[in-house]
Amino acid sequence: MSEDKLDYKRAGVDYSRLDPLKVMAQQAARDTARHLLNAGFQEVAASRGESAYVIDMGDFYLASITECLGTKSLVADAMREIGGRTYYDQIAQDTIAAAANDLATVGARPLSIHAYWAVGGSEWFDDERRMRDLVQGWKATCDALGAAWGGGETPSLAGIVQSGTIDLAASCVGIIRPKEHLVLGEALRPGDAIVLLASSGIHANGLTLARKLAERLPQGYATPLPEGRLYGEALLDATTLYSPVVQALLAAGIDIHYMANITGHGWRKIMRHPAAFTYRIASLPPVPPVLRFLAQQAGLGPDEAYGTLNMGAGYALFLAAEDAQRAIEISQAQSVPAYLAGRVESGPRRVLIEPLNVLYDAASLDLRG
Amino acid sequence: MSEDKLDYKRAGVDYSRLDPLKVMAQQAARDTARHLLNAGFQEVAASRGESAYVIDMGDFYLASITECLGTKSLVADAMREIGGRTYYDQIAQDTIAAAANDLATVGARPLSIHAYWAVGGSEWFDDERRMRDLVQGWKATCDALGAAWGGGETPSLAGIVQSGTIDLAASCVGIIRPKEHLVLGEALRPGDAIVLLASSGIHANGLTLARKLAERLPQGYATPLPEGRLYGEALLDATTLYSPVVQALLAAGIDIHYMANITGHGWRKIMRHPAAFTYRIASLPPVPPVLRFLAQQAGLGPDEAYGTLNMGAGYALFLAAEDAQRAIEISQAQSVPAYLAGRVESGPRRVLIEPLNVLYDAASLDLRG
Repeated sequence: MSEDKLDYKRAGVDYSRLDPLKVMAQQAARDTARHLLNAGFQEVAASRGESAYVIDMGDFYLASITECLGTKSLVADAMREIGGRTYYDQIAQDTIAAAANDLATVGARPLSIHAYWAVGGSEWFDDERRMRDLVQGWKATCDALGAAWGGGETPSLAGIVQSGTIDLAASCVGIIRPKEHLVLGEALRPGDAIVLLASSGIHANGLTLARKLAERLPQGYATPLPEGRLYGEALLDATTLYSPVVQALLAAGIDIHYMANITGHGWRKIMRHPAAFTYRIASLPPVPPVLRFLAQQAGLGPDEAYGTLNMGAGYALFLAAEDAQRAIEISQAQSVPAYLAGRVESGPRRVLIEPLNVLYDAASLDLRG
Repeated sequence: MSEDKLDYKRAGVDYSRLDPLKVMAQQAARDTARHLLNAGFQEVAASRGESAYVIDMGDFYLASITECLGTKSLVADAMREIGGRTYYDQIAQDTIAAAANDLATVGARPLSIHAYWAVGGSEWFDDERRMRDLVQGWKATCDALGAAWGGGETPSLAGIVQSGTIDLAASCVGIIRPKEHLVLGEALRPGDAIVLLASSGIHANGLTLARKLAERLPQGYATPLPEGRLYGEALLDATTLYSPVVQALLAAGIDIHYMANITGHGWRKIMRHPAAFTYRIASLPPVPPVLRFLAQQAGLGPDEAYGTLNMGAGYALFLAAEDAQRAIEISQAQSVPAYLAGRVESGPRRVLIEPLNVLYDAASLDLRG
């Protein structure tokens, strides 16, 4: 690896150290499921390790999740100084999308959303424009998702959250009704089509890397991309909301076999399903200019770029080949471009990206333990 | 105010700057309620501004909440260096209690809990003992509450969360069934008894102040209290879980008119209900030694101490006078001491603490806007 190259370990995120905790916590959590029986309900055990937790409530399923934005707000803070805009309306959408896109993978429709906005000190709220943008963006995203904004928490955490910064997260509760809309991957099978839904840009994953790069660029976030927009501005494009696409697919009766939200670990998430399948990608969606720029400037090879960033695909749908074209049309009717990218095959658990000659084996994505 | 005195504004938490955001957000949130109708459900509008958000699901109510621990983990981190113990099993209970105690105020039984553990860098997880204590404490608290640990998020947020620290929060989804168990305060009336439930210590509110005091004490957290325990150790006593008490009261058929979790704003929270009532306190529960020490050393008068800290009362129940004694016995059977402390009267919205000659008027607690 050359000296010029930025990778994730060097940029401060070391997945190998995070995952053992995840595994230990998941095992302890599993043991608590029995409590639901006392309340007259039952956990859907197959949802353990999936992107949202699912409880069988009798007439319907309930899904819940808490997700964090990450460090994207730091880019907005830097751009506030460069161009005057706060971008916190978009940051709000990014934060909710982190939870709602995950919630949608099990087929859930969001019901209510809670805000978690932890600041380093009360002075964060002195920037009225930013505060207003955050509130209005949060509301607009709830409206776009058809979800109620249920409440929130705005703690001031001097000594934990750095002064002038904000730790943003969202909790989401959703419903799966009729119960046939539950998607946990039991139906995934060889021959299924892989449909990739376009991303709008970096979304909320890879920002640590993107920020490190900004430090190295002489003009930082103000660096113009070949297309003319500023690097920082393009990074801040709001995460696509996939929940409306998923709801439209389910409403149209499309039998979705599985879904994966392409976030951390990039395209390795295509093999999110625990079973042994080979995912063969034959064609690639367009790469957003900001991701092409980032991969190039950070010196990432295709294996690293697609293994870290979404590279133009923010969501993966797995469904019967004969449903692929209709799913693509439904997604596009929701203004989200969609691509028939490849197929599921029997074989060892891995992702093959043929046009790039890239292979990710099962060991490169250990989410469950 | 003398130079020696620590107050909340000086210690970094300025409620007057936080509340306008809260109010703006609440107004925007209210407007999103209509989305629930499209899903076939309905918000319980009276839960807006209460401690948990409630949705009418038909056969039952669903309640949800996200809450933050605050800065108590910093005390544990300091004590780790002094005595070797991590205290993160207790910190886990504190974090869940922040959410579950609020959830219980509307009469909800917790179903599932999500963990939010945001660290400054992956190295946080290198302290295996601490990590194990956090996981085991989280599980033990879920077990104590009879709730399923549904999942969690463990982001690494370099640049937002300070290196070596952790931002802990919990999301909780609960159920209210039968629907008559819903408690929103409609039944609160003059003549009701005020029953205060004992706190175990500082719980999770007032920690910024407590930490500032530690900085000023020559022996810091290692300062022995008059009772002999170390200041830091006593601060870390885990927050009492009130949910089992509330569930036992409801199961016994006690008609609880209203409940308030005594957290930020201390005893001003006794007038949490929006209506105009006067809350007359005639007798005080015992003050935990660590709170007596803190109030004394920080130079807080009774009005400031009771207006900031729980001073021995972590939860308030409001119920018909004839039910008070039975409620006290049920609480004590759950190992939570309870005290008949006063009564609700008609009159302006205020709290009168007669033994201390302290009065909090409505303007001193503006949670709703």
